[in-house]
Amino acid sequence: MAYYFCRFLNSKPPHKSSSLLRSLNHSVRSFSAPAMSPPATAIVYHQEGPPDSVTKMVELPPVEIKQNDVCVKMLAAPINPSDINRIQGVYPVKPQMPAVGGFEGVGEVHSIGSAVKGLSPGDLVIPCPPSFGTWQTYVVKEQSVWHKVDNRTPVGYAATVFVNPLTALKMLEDFVDLKQGDAIVQNGATSMVGQCIMQLARIRGIRSINIIRDRAGSDAAREKLKSLGADEVYTESQLEVKNVKSLLGHIPEPALGLNCVGGNAASLVIKFLRRGGTMVTYGGMSKKPITVSTSSFIFKELSLRGFYLQNFMTSSRAEECKSSIDYLLGLMREGKLTYDMEFAPLDDFHLALDKSLGKLGSQPKQVIKF
Amino acid sequence: MAYYFCRFLNSKPPHKSSSLLRSLNHSVRSFSAPAMSPPATAIVYHQEGPPDSVTKMVELPPVEIKQNDVCVKMLAAPINPSDINRIQGVYPVKPQMPAVGGFEGVGEVHSIGSAVKGLSPGDLVIPCPPSFGTWQTYVVKEQSVWHKVDNRTPVGYAATVFVNPLTALKMLEDFVDLKQGDAIVQNGATSMVGQCIMQLARIRGIRSINIIRDRAGSDAAREKLKSLGADEVYTESQLEVKNVKSLLGHIPEPALGLNCVGGNAASLVIKFLRRGGTMVTYGGMSKKPITVSTSSFIFKELSLRGFYLQNFMTSSRAEECKSSIDYLLGLMREGKLTYDMEFAPLDDFHLALDKSLGKLGSQPKQVIKF
Repeated sequence: MAYYFCRFLNSKPPHKSSSLLRSLNHSVRSFSAPAMSPPATAIVYHQEGPPDSVTKMVELPPVEIKQNDVCVKMLAAPINPSDINRIQGVYPVKPQMPAVGGFEGVGEVHSIGSAVKGLSPGDLVIPCPPSFGTWQTYVVKEQSVWHKVDNRTPVGYAATVFVNPLTALKMLEDFVDLKQGDAIVQNGATSMVGQCIMQLARIRGIRSINIIRDRAGSDAAREKLKSLGADEVYTESQLEVKNVKSLLGHIPEPALGLNCVGGNAASLVIKFLRRGGTMVTYGGMSKKPITVSTSSFIFKELSLRGFYLQNFMTSSRAEECKSSIDYLLGLMREGKLTYDMEFAPLDDFHLALDKSLGKLGSQPKQVIKF
Repeated sequence: MAYYFCRFLNSKPPHKSSSLLRSLNHSVRSFSAPAMSPPATAIVYHQEGPPDSVTKMVELPPVEIKQNDVCVKMLAAPINPSDINRIQGVYPVKPQMPAVGGFEGVGEVHSIGSAVKGLSPGDLVIPCPPSFGTWQTYVVKEQSVWHKVDNRTPVGYAATVFVNPLTALKMLEDFVDLKQGDAIVQNGATSMVGQCIMQLARIRGIRSINIIRDRAGSDAAREKLKSLGADEVYTESQLEVKNVKSLLGHIPEPALGLNCVGGNAASLVIKFLRRGGTMVTYGGMSKKPITVSTSSFIFKELSLRGFYLQNFMTSSRAEECKSSIDYLLGLMREGKLTYDMEFAPLDDFHLALDKSLGKLGSQPKQVIKF
């Protein structure tokens, strides 16, 4: 964060002689490392508002690389719905303005400060936990921000591993003690998190019931999700039956429900849950609230909870977070966890943004490639 | 349970000579104990339906007191809303028909089976956990059903300690780790559970915010609740403000909310809760569902759960249950936990039932005195 302010508030480079002096006082490695980052091209917004009108591509001047800093040449960063919401001003945690967009991504170490150990130019790194400002060609942040990942990881997956796949993994792990043979139910199943959930469930021997919207192409969507490992896929209208549990067949009543839609789609998740089950809400795509009967709480003993990724940004969970990321990247390298994405060069950012905003119909996840 | 069926299905007393033989084979104490209970007067229903039409007062024949049985002369038993709902057939757990009404109560040991130890005639006992059929003058059940309580306990409190005060205590203890100085918020605050909650909270140094209905007499109700220890009392209409938290003053944001109403009154509880707070639903007096926004789960990180007293009926929690009951009865004997009740002789059962059904306006808890 402080970095961007420095870029904006102090556009003159720091005093050359002092920076040269600092370099001379350090080791050969630090001496050979540049004390300043290259200039960067960035997607910046000066105020919250409609993302397609408030974001601009700008050139930012070089910034100093302090002794604990790492300068990373960004390789790829996605446009997530949460990035869009953050620019719109929906979230309670706000960056200071002006701000660079983006929250997760992957890059290659370009140069390091004199005190940095364990990272070398060419290493593949992700900010872990992520932080504001990945939509730019060079990012300078303290070493502690960067998590080195296996260089063989495809950059598209490394760029997108945190916000969606980690949400899927943590929701499967942190709320209900699921065992092989158990079942889960989710709505919004075609979303990237939804696709990760069904694949991670399948790897654990957990059955998944997946609810999707009624729309043209829902048959193709069903086949696609089944090929990823979904056990059952229903459109909302297919669940307009007296007792949804009559559809379960050999699948046990689910212990965990995942809701990113709200409204009727949330009610359907609740109907599937077994006594004592838990529904975790992590999104509200329909913009409708969740309505629950009293008897769901008293007789069915349901728990309704929420998942907020921000809670994994605390230092106390940093190691857990990194080991989860490594696990997910391993699955991705083995081809066991996949999803669609489309790369867009930075120059085409606004086209990719329009696609992410849904202006051009249903599109795969847009990932900026720098 | 088995006992009632025996009364109904086998109205002939068991074979006299075998029972005499059994008595002769045991100690002096068992020899002196009667092998048969007295006949009983009971409130019985043969089918579920409107309580005022399906319940009848009937005479039941004596039943055998087996070696582990205790025959208890009932002294008092309340008419709880849950008793009414059970007769109406609302609950998933149903007694077999015909059934004797009532679920909790207190009595005095009348006679004991030959193998019973630790209970003597004259002891004050409650069924703990409670079980179907306390609306009768004599009850015969196994010793393990009966929990001996201090003989100095007023019978009205001993008769009513389980269903409402224990619900209040367990909701305060089992969901959120409340500390002195913390706060809770509840709706339905004039209910018996509500009154217990505010008193138990006060004893622990926990502040209570109490929401009541708008109705004639709400000022008097407020004063009454404040005299019991309520910190703040609001009618629902007083909470039609932009930000209910502006009313908190020196009271911290509550960590625990208790909901027995649903609808708008539940939404008000949710509005008061602090980030990460929990709302526990234990009733739905308005018959309206609970509506929750997505952001309550994600950004406010609320948990919504339910309380079902039936879960305390399991043998694994029997000791916890008895120690909680003893704690509550101790507070009652010390005058620290009080509530209003009205005693009605068994002959006036149907008048007391009408009062409990709300046919005669707001009335105190009706307790049958045998």
